[in-house]
Amino acid sequence: MTTNERLVKQITAKSEDFSRWYAEIVQKAELADYSPMKGIMVIRPYGYAIWENIQRAMDLRIKATGHVNAYFPLFIPESLLQKEAEHVEGFAPEVAWVTVGGKEDLEERLAVRPTSEAIIGPMYSKWIKSWRDLPVLYNQWANIVRWEKVTRPFLRTTEFLWQEGHTCHATAEEAEEETLKILAMYKEFCETELAIPVISGHKTLREKFAGAQMTYAIEALMADGKALQMGTSHNLGQHFAKAFDIKFEDKNQTLQYVWQTSWGTTTRMIGALIMCHGDDSGLRFPPRVAPVQVVIVPIAAGNWKETVLPAAQAAAESLKKAGLRIQLDAREEATPGWKFSEYEMRGVPLRVEIGPRDVKNGQAVCVRRDLKTKQTVPLSELAARVPVILDEIQAVLFEEAKTFLAANTRPAGTYEDFKSILETKRGFVVSPWCGESDCEEKIKNETMATIRVIVPGTEARPSDVCVCCGKPALTVAHFARAY
Amino acid sequence: MTTNERLVKQITAKSEDFSRWYAEIVQKAELADYSPMKGIMVIRPYGYAIWENIQRAMDLRIKATGHVNAYFPLFIPESLLQKEAEHVEGFAPEVAWVTVGGKEDLEERLAVRPTSEAIIGPMYSKWIKSWRDLPVLYNQWANIVRWEKVTRPFLRTTEFLWQEGHTCHATAEEAEEETLKILAMYKEFCETELAIPVISGHKTLREKFAGAQMTYAIEALMADGKALQMGTSHNLGQHFAKAFDIKFEDKNQTLQYVWQTSWGTTTRMIGALIMCHGDDSGLRFPPRVAPVQVVIVPIAAGNWKETVLPAAQAAAESLKKAGLRIQLDAREEATPGWKFSEYEMRGVPLRVEIGPRDVKNGQAVCVRRDLKTKQTVPLSELAARVPVILDEIQAVLFEEAKTFLAANTRPAGTYEDFKSILETKRGFVVSPWCGESDCEEKIKNETMATIRVIVPGTEARPSDVCVCCGKPALTVAHFARAY
Repeated sequence: MTTNERLVKQITAKSEDFSRWYAEIVQKAELADYSPMKGIMVIRPYGYAIWENIQRAMDLRIKATGHVNAYFPLFIPESLLQKEAEHVEGFAPEVAWVTVGGKEDLEERLAVRPTSEAIIGPMYSKWIKSWRDLPVLYNQWANIVRWEKVTRPFLRTTEFLWQEGHTCHATAEEAEEETLKILAMYKEFCETELAIPVISGHKTLREKFAGAQMTYAIEALMADGKALQMGTSHNLGQHFAKAFDIKFEDKNQTLQYVWQTSWGTTTRMIGALIMCHGDDSGLRFPPRVAPVQVVIVPIAAGNWKETVLPAAQAAAESLKKAGLRIQLDAREEATPGWKFSEYEMRGVPLRVEIGPRDVKNGQAVCVRRDLKTKQTVPLSELAARVPVILDEIQAVLFEEAKTFLAANTRPAGTYEDFKSILETKRGFVVSPWCGESDCEEKIKNETMATIRVIVPGTEARPSDVCVCCGKPALTVAHFARAY
Repeated sequence: MTTNERLVKQITAKSEDFSRWYAEIVQKAELADYSPMKGIMVIRPYGYAIWENIQRAMDLRIKATGHVNAYFPLFIPESLLQKEAEHVEGFAPEVAWVTVGGKEDLEERLAVRPTSEAIIGPMYSKWIKSWRDLPVLYNQWANIVRWEKVTRPFLRTTEFLWQEGHTCHATAEEAEEETLKILAMYKEFCETELAIPVISGHKTLREKFAGAQMTYAIEALMADGKALQMGTSHNLGQHFAKAFDIKFEDKNQTLQYVWQTSWGTTTRMIGALIMCHGDDSGLRFPPRVAPVQVVIVPIAAGNWKETVLPAAQAAAESLKKAGLRIQLDAREEATPGWKFSEYEMRGVPLRVEIGPRDVKNGQAVCVRRDLKTKQTVPLSELAARVPVILDEIQAVLFEEAKTFLAANTRPAGTYEDFKSILETKRGFVVSPWCGESDCEEKIKNETMATIRVIVPGTEARPSDVCVCCGKPALTVAHFARAY
C-alpha cells in the first residue's frame, strides 16, 4: 500500500457518508479542531486563512457601499436585551451569561452578545439627533456566542465569527433599499468569491430574525441536497428604534423614530465552501478564497537540488510576484505521491510539478484540482498562464454548482411528490403555500423541510393550491431540509 | 463668539489639565464613547479606523516574520486556567466568569479570556508530536476581557482588542531569540508607524507576566511625563509546556517539553497616539496611521459650485489615486473656520484649502497640522507633493517625541533627587537598584514609580549603590510613574 492510498483510505468517501466525510475532512485538512469545550471549535491557520480572504473581499464591498467599521462591547446588560420583547424571547434561550466579575457577583447579568442590536441601540440613541446625522452606516467584525445543543464545525458552533451591519435611516423606503442592496451584495459576493450560486428572497414570519420586521436571506444548496443559509439582511422597521428611543429631528423640526436594518455573514461560509465543492479526494477551494492557490512540488531525483529545486524556487518567486498565494513543498521526507494526494485533499486549486525532465524542457506540469487535468506550461510563461488557469477553475466550480442547483430544484404540486422528493432526492422543492404558519409547522414536522425563502417572481397562479393543506395558495415557496 | 472659538472653548487645554483633556478629546473627536456598562467603551468609526491601520501594518510584520493567524475560543474552562499556578493567581482577580448557558447552570465556570495561554496549551499538546512540527508560530487577533476597577478609554478598559502571538520552539535559545525578535519588531513598529520612540528592555520579576519566565517590554513616555507600556514579549520557558503537557519527540527520539513565547499589543496604542502627539488644539495623528490623512476644504464664495467645487473634487480624486486617505468636506452648513478647527481637533495631518483665487491661480493652500505652517502648491503637483509633505509630518512628530523623551529621561543618584524629579518633572528616572523586590515595592509605595524596564547596556558600575536602600546596585533601571 502506497502512502497515497493510505491517505485516501483514512477519509470516508464523500459519496459514502457525507456527514462523516465533512467531520473528517475538517480535521484532516487542519481547517478546525475541537476545543476542550463541547461545541466550541478552534479555527486552525489553514481555515483561518480562508476567513481572512473572505474578510478582505467582504470588507472591500462593505466599504465600497459607504459603510464604516466600529466596535461595540461583547457584553450586553440583561435589561437592554429585554427591551425589545420579541428579540429577547428569540435569543434568551441561547445566551451565555456572565454573572461574576473578578471576585464579585454582578448586580445585573451580562449577556455575551448573541447579536448586537441591543448594545448598539443605546449608543445610536445617544449619537443621533438630527436628519443630518443620517444615514448611519456601521459594520463590525466580531465574535458571537449562541449556546447551541447540537454543533458542527463552521456550521453551528457556540462561538463563531461574523460581520454585522447596523444602519439607521430617515425613511422606511431607505431602510428597505439598504436591506435589498446588502442582500444583492451578499449574493454577488457568494457567487463571485465563493463560486456558490444562491437563491435570494424573504423569509416567512416563522423564520425571521427575532425583532425584525422582515428578514431576507440568501440560501445555497450543499452537495448532500440540504440547504444552507449563507447570509441574512433584516429590515428592522422601527422595532428597535422604539425600544431604544432612537429619534431624530427631521427637516420640519419634528422628532421621528429612525428606520433600521441589520445584516450578517459568518464563518459558516467556510462550511459551505467545503460542502459545496468537495469531492471524494477531499476539498476543492475556489482560487479567489483558497488559502494556497498553487502548490509547487519539485520532483526529487538525481542532482535535483542543483537543477529542479532552483527552477521550482524561481517559479514560486515569479508566481508570488504575480500576486498569487504560493506554497513550495520541497520536503524530502515526503514522496511526490504523498504530496499530490495531500494537496488534493487540502483543496489547493492548482499543483505545479517540476521534475528533471521538465527542467530540461523548460516547462512545468500543471494539474488542476477541479478536473484533475494536466497541461505542460513553459516555465517562462508560468506567471502569465497560471492566473488564467485559476480563473478557469473558479468558473468551472461555479458552473458545476449552478448545474447542481438547477438539477436539484424541483417543483412539487402534490404533498406526495413533495415528500417523495425530500425522501429520495432532497434539494429545493418549489411549491405553492397557503401562507399559514400552522401549515408551515406541519410540513416541518412531517418532512423536516422548512421554507428557506420566498423568491420574488415565483408568485402563485390563481389556480394554485397549498401543497400541504389544499387551500388557495398565497405564494410559492422554496422548501428544503437545511443545516 | 464665532463657532471656531466656541469649539476651542469646549475642550480643556491639554497644558491645563492633561487628564481632562484626554477624556474630552476622546469623546469630542468621536474616537470612543462610554457604553452603558461601567469601564466598557465603544470604539467609534474614527477611532476604529486607526485600529484598522495599526492592524494592517502590524499583521504585515507578523506574517513577514513567518507567523500565521488562527482563532482560539473566547471561553476558558476554570480547570484549564488553574493549570499554571502563577498564571491563575495573576489573572483570577480580573476574570469575568460565565456561569449560565441558555437556561442551565454550567457544571464548570468558563473564564472570558484574559489572555489565551491556557486555552491554546491543550491544543498545542494535541497538535505537536515531533521536532518536525516545530517551530509553531501562531498569532491571533481577538477581544480580551479583564475586570478592571479604574478604567480610561483605550488605556485601561474591561474589554479591549489585541493581537497575541503564541509560539513553540525546540530549544530555550530559539524561544529567547523569538522573544527578542518580536520585541525589536514592536519597537520598529511604534517608531515607524506611530512615530513614538520607545525604550526596550526586560521587566523585573515583580512586574513580569503571570506565568512567564521573563517579560520584555517597550515603554513610551506620554506628554504628561507618565510612562505607557506599548507592548510585551514574554519568554514563557517551559512553564506552560509542563502545565499543559506540550511535548515533542526530538531528533534522538527523546520526548522533550517545548519552549514557548507569547507577546501582544493592544488598542491601548491608540491612547498612546493621543497622549504622545496631541496639543492644545487637539489631536495630531501621524500620517501613516491617521484615519484621514488629508482633508480638502473648498471655500464657498460666489459661483464656487462651478469653479471651486470641481477643483476640490479633482484634487480629492488625484490624491485618492495616489493611495491616500482623503476626506472632502463640502458641507455648506459649516463655515470654513469651523471646519479648520474641527479637523485640527481631529488631528488630520494636512488640510488642503481651495478658494476662488486659488482656482484662478491653479493652486491650493496646504496647512500642516504639526507645525501649522502654510504653503501653496500648484494643483497639478498636488498628488506628487502631498505624500512628501505627509512623510515630513511623520518625521517631525517622531523627532519631537524623541526630543521630549531624551529631555525627560534623567539620572538620579540619590533618593532625594529621585523623588524630586518624580514630583516636579516626572519622566523616566534612571537609577541604580539593588535588585530586591522589597525595595522596588517601597519605592512604588513612596513615589508611585515602578521599574518600567531594565535596558540592556545600562549596567551598574561597581561603585553604584541602590537609589533607595543604599546597598550595592545590581543593575540600573528606568523608573517612572505609569498608566
